[in-house]
Amino acid sequence: MSDCIFCKIAGGEVPAEIVYQDDQIVGFKDIRPVAPVHILLIPRKHIPDLTAITPEDAELIGRLHLAAVKVAADQGLAERGFRLVNNCKAEGGQVVYHLHFHLLGGRQMRTLG
Amino acid sequence: MSDCIFCKIAGGEVPAEIVYQDDQIVGFKDIRPVAPVHILLIPRKHIPDLTAITPEDAELIGRLHLAAVKVAADQGLAERGFRLVNNCKAEGGQVVYHLHFHLLGGRQMRTLG
Repeated sequence: MSDCIFCKIAGGEVPAEIVYQDDQIVGFKDIRPVAPVHILLIPRKHIPDLTAITPEDAELIGRLHLAAVKVAADQGLAERGFRLVNNCKAEGGQVVYHLHFHLLGGRQMRTLG
Repeated sequence: MSDCIFCKIAGGEVPAEIVYQDDQIVGFKDIRPVAPVHILLIPRKHIPDLTAITPEDAELIGRLHLAAVKVAADQGLAERGFRLVNNCKAEGGQVVYHLHFHLLGGRQMRTLG
C-alpha cells in the first residue's frame, strides 16, 4: 500500500525506532507513548484491520504475539507483565489502518478502555 | 489444570454464558462487564499467560483472533469496531492465570490503559 505509513516504516522509507524485525513482523516505538514502554507490532503484510484477517493469516497473527513476548522480555517486562491491545475500527479507537498491536508496559495498567 | 476456573468453564463444569466454541477456543461473557459487549476468548489448552506461548501455539493464537472477529460480527460490531486486549501478568492487570483476551465493544473505547 503506497500511502500507508506503517508499510513505509516496515519498508524503511519512513524512519522509526525499530526494536524488532523479522521477515514477517516489525516492532517500533509509538511516537506518542502513553506508558514507559509503548511499542507497536505490525505484520509487514498490509492488513487494514483485524476484521480483514483470514485463516491463512492465523500463523502470522500467532507469530506477531511471539514477537510481542520477545520484545516485552527485551524491555524487562517478562516478569512484571504488560498489556497487548488491538484497536479495531472506529469504536475500537483505530487510527492507522494497517493492523497493529500496542504493547504497553512499565507501569500498572488500569481500565480496559 | 484441575483448579483453573477457565478450564472448568471450557469443560462445562462451571456455567458461563458461552457465545462461541470450537475444538480449540471458547468465548463467554465476562461476569463483570466494563462495556456493553465484554466477552472473553480463551484457548481450551491451559496456557497460564501470554509469555508461556511457544511457536507451536502460533496457529492457536491466530485461530483465537479469527474467533474473536467472528464473535464481534455476531455482536454487531464488524463495522463499528471493537477492542481486543490481553492483560499479561501483574502490571498488565491479569487476574485469572489462563490465557484470555478481552473483546470489548458497543461503546467508544478510550484510554489504552
